[in-house]
Amino acid sequence: MGALPTLAVVGATGAVGSVLCELLSSRKNVWGEVRLIASARSAGRRVLVRGEELVVRELSAEAFDGVDVAVFDVPDDVSATWVPVATERGAVAVDNSAAFRMDPDVPLVVPEVNPERIRDRPKGIVANPNCTTLAMIVTVGALHREYGLRELIISSYQAASGAGQAGIDALHDQLAKVSGDRTIGTRAGDVRQAVGDELGPFPAPLALNVVPWAGSLRDHGWSSEELKLRNESRKILGLPDLKVSATCVRVPVVTGHSVAVHAVFGAEVDADDAAEIIKQAPGVVLVDDPAEGEFPTPADAAGTDPTWAGRLRRALDDPRALDVFVVGDNLRKGAALNTVQIAEQVAAELSTA
Amino acid sequence: MGALPTLAVVGATGAVGSVLCELLSSRKNVWGEVRLIASARSAGRRVLVRGEELVVRELSAEAFDGVDVAVFDVPDDVSATWVPVATERGAVAVDNSAAFRMDPDVPLVVPEVNPERIRDRPKGIVANPNCTTLAMIVTVGALHREYGLRELIISSYQAASGAGQAGIDALHDQLAKVSGDRTIGTRAGDVRQAVGDELGPFPAPLALNVVPWAGSLRDHGWSSEELKLRNESRKILGLPDLKVSATCVRVPVVTGHSVAVHAVFGAEVDADDAAEIIKQAPGVVLVDDPAEGEFPTPADAAGTDPTWAGRLRRALDDPRALDVFVVGDNLRKGAALNTVQIAEQVAAELSTA
Repeated sequence: MGALPTLAVVGATGAVGSVLCELLSSRKNVWGEVRLIASARSAGRRVLVRGEELVVRELSAEAFDGVDVAVFDVPDDVSATWVPVATERGAVAVDNSAAFRMDPDVPLVVPEVNPERIRDRPKGIVANPNCTTLAMIVTVGALHREYGLRELIISSYQAASGAGQAGIDALHDQLAKVSGDRTIGTRAGDVRQAVGDELGPFPAPLALNVVPWAGSLRDHGWSSEELKLRNESRKILGLPDLKVSATCVRVPVVTGHSVAVHAVFGAEVDADDAAEIIKQAPGVVLVDDPAEGEFPTPADAAGTDPTWAGRLRRALDDPRALDVFVVGDNLRKGAALNTVQIAEQVAAELSTA
Repeated sequence: MGALPTLAVVGATGAVGSVLCELLSSRKNVWGEVRLIASARSAGRRVLVRGEELVVRELSAEAFDGVDVAVFDVPDDVSATWVPVATERGAVAVDNSAAFRMDPDVPLVVPEVNPERIRDRPKGIVANPNCTTLAMIVTVGALHREYGLRELIISSYQAASGAGQAGIDALHDQLAKVSGDRTIGTRAGDVRQAVGDELGPFPAPLALNVVPWAGSLRDHGWSSEELKLRNESRKILGLPDLKVSATCVRVPVVTGHSVAVHAVFGAEVDADDAAEIIKQAPGVVLVDDPAEGEFPTPADAAGTDPTWAGRLRRALDDPRALDVFVVGDNLRKGAALNTVQIAEQVAAELSTA
């Protein structure tokens, strides 16, 4: 292939798609044409990419003609319908929905953890993990390579933007309603009363609250988000029997998913060695000096590319376990950035083919 | 003893003390005189208790003359100095600071879990646990009685009021600064910039953020708050070798501490049986129907007496483990209410002596 490959961005005007367009403008350019695609509602909008104003095209089969790589940042049902259309027309699809993640013929890839899986894509589809999985898996993957992971017990602190622009809007709307009342938040129901029906995509008020629910209900009381953390971690790490217990909780943060991780390994661990492993690992930065107020928080991680790890401790009662707090921008490494990284690796492969 | 006992409330004008005065007005009255005590700065203030306006007295040795039970809601150093003064003058002290909690001669009591320990107080002191421990220990204690607890892996979602009135004020101040800017929270540092130096008692902005730190730094990177959860759980449950790993995180909530609990037991557990155990247990209410949006949140738990449990699930990969999300008002059951419950039990004991 002589010319640079053509990239299609499907869902270019959504919360993740917008970040993806920004990333294309700031990263080393490996693309010839960039084609922006969205629903009929957003078609015709103009978006600046690589210093050039592009007109968003409406999603259609023809829109994929001549496309080498198509990245999808759209709801599951849209991906389920349109990813096969793109691959039939010859594109490699990089899909950020949950539609194909657990398909055994679709690799689920984090370039820092299992880049070798990208080439093994019998359906021409590469899947991008869930944003909460991505916040932790770079750190967990690096530690697993050294110590051999056996079990994960994780609690999430997930940002509103994980529920898209509607989530961001609902949080801001609710904050405007509770802000200024210095007596609020001490009586049962006063936050609910102030917020009223403006719950947005959340099942309870998010302002001045935490909501122990994300996704939809599955068997035995588990949420789909919690099962994604289990299933995706197993697939990415190649550990089909990994023990995982996750509790997913939404917090009143705009951007940046945090995860408190308790990881149990097959071998005894050392906190200093583990810190060195994280420091050496690509895609994660260790920020761990609590005496100086140094630990990762979503307010500091928002808008940045790497994931951030801190509060690294060996468990006091289990020499094989580490506790660590990790944070990642759910729209960047948690979605758009990881997708772009995969797409760039496919582009490099096509260029050298 | 014929007359009703005299109660002294030390720290009557603080965040916890104020709630305690409210509770005294709403609970069955077991007290003769109620004497409010605070620092010189607050002395002279008038507070309504049991429909009667009381003048706050300044803390002094003489203030404890004739007192039968003295409850302390003051900082550790104030308790360390003044609790022995109160007991020397013949009062039973119920202390909500950390000053005496780990003293082997001081019982650490949660009336729903280990009420029998109250009478065993060689120093005349009964200690009240930390507010985060109290959010979870009623649920955990009930399950422990049935299944035999072996290990706790816990992540907290702690409210600003856990850091006192200064914490509440800081959160409101910060919310006022970030509210109304619908672009905030997506760029590294934009929340820090908006909040400026108004961090209050927290080491990082709390509005639109979560802060993985509470308390002071101890050995090997653990925070004092995390070690309290370990040490106090062990002492309350009478399990000196209980394995505990805790990560304590502050969230932008005014009142209500939440804890995601992964509890491993000695015996196989059943989720339906566990739900029944929690339903039957005093001091905790099960709210667990996620399909109907029913799970505990701090906005619903604030201002209420019980602790709340939900999201009860048996671990998918460990038949001996349960995951559960618990919430408690950190100023009520987490502090003032538990203190009052202990004090009332002492009062009953004195009345029948």
